[in-house]
Order: sequence, then structure tokens, then C-alpha cells
Amino acid sequence: MQRVPVGERLPTLEDVARVAGVSRATVSRVINGIRNVDPQLHEMVWDAVGRTGYVPNRMARSLVTRRTGTVALVVSDSEAHDDDPFMSRFFADPYFGRVVGGLMSVLRQAGVQLALQIVGSDDGRQRLVGDLRNGQADGVIVLSLPAVDALPRMLTEGGVPAVLIGRPAEPVPINYVDLANETGATLAAEHLLGRGCKRIGMISGPADVPASHDRISGFRRATAKHGHGWVPIVAGNFTQESGEAAMRSLLAESPDLDGVFVANDLMAVGALVALRDAGRRVPDDVAIVGFDDSSAALSAAPPLTTVRHPLEDMAAEAARLLLARIEDPQMRPSSVIYEPTLVLRRSA
Amino acid sequence: MQRVPVGERLPTLEDVARVAGVSRATVSRVINGIRNVDPQLHEMVWDAVGRTGYVPNRMARSLVTRRTGTVALVVSDSEAHDDDPFMSRFFADPYFGRVVGGLMSVLRQAGVQLALQIVGSDDGRQRLVGDLRNGQADGVIVLSLPAVDALPRMLTEGGVPAVLIGRPAEPVPINYVDLANETGATLAAEHLLGRGCKRIGMISGPADVPASHDRISGFRRATAKHGHGWVPIVAGNFTQESGEAAMRSLLAESPDLDGVFVANDLMAVGALVALRDAGRRVPDDVAIVGFDDSSAALSAAPPLTTVRHPLEDMAAEAARLLLARIEDPQMRPSSVIYEPTLVLRRSA
Repeated sequence: MQRVPVGERLPTLEDVARVAGVSRATVSRVINGIRNVDPQLHEMVWDAVGRTGYVPNRMARSLVTRRTGTVALVVSDSEAHDDDPFMSRFFADPYFGRVVGGLMSVLRQAGVQLALQIVGSDDGRQRLVGDLRNGQADGVIVLSLPAVDALPRMLTEGGVPAVLIGRPAEPVPINYVDLANETGATLAAEHLLGRGCKRIGMISGPADVPASHDRISGFRRATAKHGHGWVPIVAGNFTQESGEAAMRSLLAESPDLDGVFVANDLMAVGALVALRDAGRRVPDDVAIVGFDDSSAALSAAPPLTTVRHPLEDMAAEAARLLLARIEDPQMRPSSVIYEPTLVLRRSA
Repeated sequence: MQRVPVGERLPTLEDVARVAGVSRATVSRVINGIRNVDPQLHEMVWDAVGRTGYVPNRMARSLVTRRTGTVALVVSDSEAHDDDPFMSRFFADPYFGRVVGGLMSVLRQAGVQLALQIVGSDDGRQRLVGDLRNGQADGVIVLSLPAVDALPRMLTEGGVPAVLIGRPAEPVPINYVDLANETGATLAAEHLLGRGCKRIGMISGPADVPASHDRISGFRRATAKHGHGWVPIVAGNFTQESGEAAMRSLLAESPDLDGVFVANDLMAVGALVALRDAGRRVPDDVAIVGFDDSSAALSAAPPLTTVRHPLEDMAAEAARLLLARIEDPQMRPSSVIYEPTLVLRRSA
């Protein structure tokens, strides 16, 4: 690429227009990413930008508009360390990728980029809120993992546009999208009872995490309604290994179990391993219903009957809510609750 | 929170220092995220920032330093559309999350945030390079999906600090980290032959994608060396469904197959489904070796013997290379090649 010297001064928009042989307005349109510019003009302008060494002052512009064109995806964890094995498990879990895919489907069209951040301490949360108030991003999507998390309240009090994926653990006037987790657990319980299971149990997530709590209470309520005043429940932590261990405990405690609701698909895959080792056939001896309808449900053997968690759609809706809130600071906090459905495959 | 009015003018650093009752230097240290500040001081300063309404001029600062503290992760695809089912599959694949986890493990410690972008057309690639040259991010990590991709060359010519994950399809003076894919395929072939397989085949990825190409050539070379001048190879596209279809084709073509190397774990899980449907036992009738050692390998039934692809480590190294290149614009392009190992489980 041949450089076009413009002397000692910094090259300007006019220099670019001159070198490209187009109008100043055309240069401006191309540089500002306005759509519907003739691709050939586009190339001529960027070529001229390169040859003159012009640096469009995007940052200076964002000083004026107070917009960065960036939205942050914040993973708020209780005690994330830099080499925390939990975090790498979290990223490798289909959950994270499904959320990112849903967010990107909306943000790309809006020309907004997604910046990823992890905060693992209250100190980090405080610094994050400060950064956001100072315009590091226009708003934030929050994936809150711990049972008790000050971040939603801090964001609300700081006036930062924010949308949570999953309801906050305590009532806070913040936007969120969530799944009707209780309904999902009810669907699972009624399917197991409907297919004739007599001794059912559950492998749950941590009891203090909102989504997990709601699946437990929904399951308890639905089974109680059908005369099962007590059902054995063993908690895992949403990983495959914890599901395998929980299934072994359940079998030890209730050897005559014939149906189990597992609070996510990864733990259900672990439960299948434990059942195989114990010589139980699925679904003939023990029927299994998972939760999420993630790729793990499809690759399991047998494929899992599971509660569908439309995470991509929910994340896309969260992105739309956030963009609306950024446009309209007066927007009242709103929540969008998705209804789960049961996906029938072979495990129950 | 009680607001402290400072009159009509914009609040300054001095106002914050006065309200917090600390020195100007302390305010500066806290706001600039310098570590080792007394947590109590930290809180007092951020509290005062909130009460005065001071906006630290991060963007004005980045105008001076010409640094944004942001690195972009760019997914370069051949024709990504906003509702492209391929993209949502890509994000849900463990591959994407493992890369993000590895990158974040290094970037977090450096206080650098990761911004995600997808480009699906040459027009988009051109705009991206323009944005990067204009300082939208300090550098870029590239996941290039298509067989032919102009982006690496465009980044090099534009002088944008960049690191590819996986070698470029054509020689370009750019930093990259890669796996010795040929060696991995050789390990798989020799393991199948070593356990006594006589009629082996392969399920490959698209032949024109570099990583996939290298696995095919490694497998062909290793099998030829052991007297198998010709082996049947059917191509999939790295998804579970494509692996299932490819296995059916392989079985139709070579019903007496007793060992298959599958170029990624997700396709291997699909192959297991097809083999189960065809009544073949794994590994007794047909032995299967996968590639990646992703979570899919562990959840498969039986768990997969597979070639380990240390993606988290490779992504972490890519982040370190990029940060070094950002610090030192004169750094010569370098490549880091990881050696794969074979992980023995039950499928072969």
C-alpha cells in the first residue's frame, strides 16, 4: 500500500476525501459504518484512509455522544480466582455459549459489541460499577452465579442500565428475563408420575441459587399434590461428576427408585453413568427427566427427555430489553418470564 | 446515597478527594484501578465518586494513551447471517467456551477486557480492520472458520496486533498458536492399528479447513506407513448430526469396518449413535477414537478415547502473545505449536 504524505500535520477527513476522489459526506458515511454505501466506494474510502494514515476519532466522538457502542456481559461469581477450575468448567458448559449466541444475534444487528467481564469479589464488583458509571460500556447483561449477590442492587443504585438473566435472589428493581422454573419442575414430576413411576426422587442444584430453588419447590409441590408427601432429594452443583455422585447417593438411600428428575442435563448425563454402573436400565428400571434441553441431552445415551430452557431466546430478549433501556433511561424495570415445555426423548 | 452538590460546574477529582477526605493521589490510584489500595479507602473513594457525580474521563485518557484496555475476539465466518443456525451451533459447541475460558484466564489478570465480534462477509472484515486501525481495540484474537479467509492478511497489512488460533490457510506473517494436528491423527491411527484393527476408516471435517486438512493428511500418512494404501474417509462438518450421517455412509460402504478415527468428539458422539442403531458394539465390534478431549468425550457412552487438544492452554498462550505484541510493535511474528497426546478411555 502506497502511503500518501500530507506533511507534518495529522491527516484529516478532507485529505481522505481528496485521495479517494469522493465527497467529504461519503467518507463520513463510510467511516461511521452507515449501511447502504456502494461497496466500491467503501473500498476506495478505506483504501484512502490507509494511504493517508487518517485516524477517525471514534473515541473523541464517544466523548460527545457518551455512548461506547459496547454492552458488557458480566459473569458475577462468588469467589472466582484466576485459575479457578469452576470458571473454566462454566465456560465449557453449553449454558455460557447458548447465552452468548442469543445475545450476539441481537447485538450484531444493532452494531453493538459485547465485552466480557468476570467479577469474583465485592471489591471487583465495586470497581466494575464504577467503570460502568464512567462509561466503559453503555449497559450490562448479568449472569449472576452465587446465591447472594450484591451486584444487582449496586447496578440499580448506580443507575447503570442492566438486565439479569435469571431472577435476582432478593427483590431489586431491575430488568430480568427468567424461566418459569417451578412450572418446568412440575412438568417433569407429572411426566414421571404419569408414566407410572411409584418411587421418585430428585437430583437438584444448590438449594440457595434462585433457579435451583424454584426447581426444587416446584418438584416438591407437584409430587405432594399427587400424594408423595416426601421425596428424596440429593444436591449436586450442575456438573456431570456431581450428578454421578448424587445418583449413587440416591441409589444407596432408595434402592427401589424408579424415576428421577435431574435439575440439569449435565448432571443427568452423570446420573446415567451411575445407573449404568449399577446395572439399571433407563428408562425400563429408572426413568430420567433432565432440564435445559442442551446439546448434552441429545448426545446422552439414551437421549434425554428434558425440560426445554429456551436460553438463546431469553438472552436475545435480554439484549433487546437492554438496548431499549439504554435508549430510554426512564423505562420502568420489566421482567419477561418464559414458559418451559417438556421435550420427549427416550430416557423417560 | 446523598448527593453532594458542587455547583454548576462539572465535579473534579479534587471534589472527590475533598468529599472522601483523602489525597488527590489516592483518588487517582483508586479510579485507575491500581491494586493494593486499602479496601476501606477504595470504598470511601467510590462512595465520594458517587456522591459528587464525578465522571473519571476514561475515554479522554484513552485518547492520550491510544490504548483501550480491550482486546477483540473475532469469529471470522464465510457467510454468517444474523440468524445463521451455524453460528448458534458454533457458540453452543464446547470449542468456543474453552477458547473464551483460556483467553479470560490471562486477560483478567492483565485487567484487559475481551470484546466479541463476528464478521461474516468481506465487507464486514474490511469495516472491522478499519475499526481496529482506528483504535476500537488494542489487538485481536482470531478464530477463522472458513477455508479461505482474507482477514489474516488484511490484519497484517493494516498493522493490527493479531494472533490466530490455528494456523492461517495460506502463509501470512502473523502470530498464531496451533496444535500439531498431523501428529494427533498419527497417534489415533497407530492406536487403532496397535489394538489390532484391520479395516479402519475416518470421519473427517471439511477437507479445505487447515486443522481438518492436517488431520486427514496425518491419518493417511500413518495408515499408509502400515500398509493401508487406501482408507475410506467420509467428511462431516464437525456437528453431532453430521458424524451420525457420516458413520452410516461409512458402514454402507465398508460393512466390515472395525476401527474409525473421528476428527472431533461431537462427530464421534454422532458416530456412536449410528453404530448403536446398526447393532455394533463399541469397542468390541468397532473401535472409535475421537479428537479434542472436550466434555462430549467424557459424557459419551462409552467415554471416548480421544486426542487431547489443549484449547484452554492454547488460548491462554494466544492472549499472552497478543499482549506482548501490543507492548512491542516490533515483535516478530511467532508461532507456538502444541503437541497432542492420546487420552485412553473405553471406546478404543
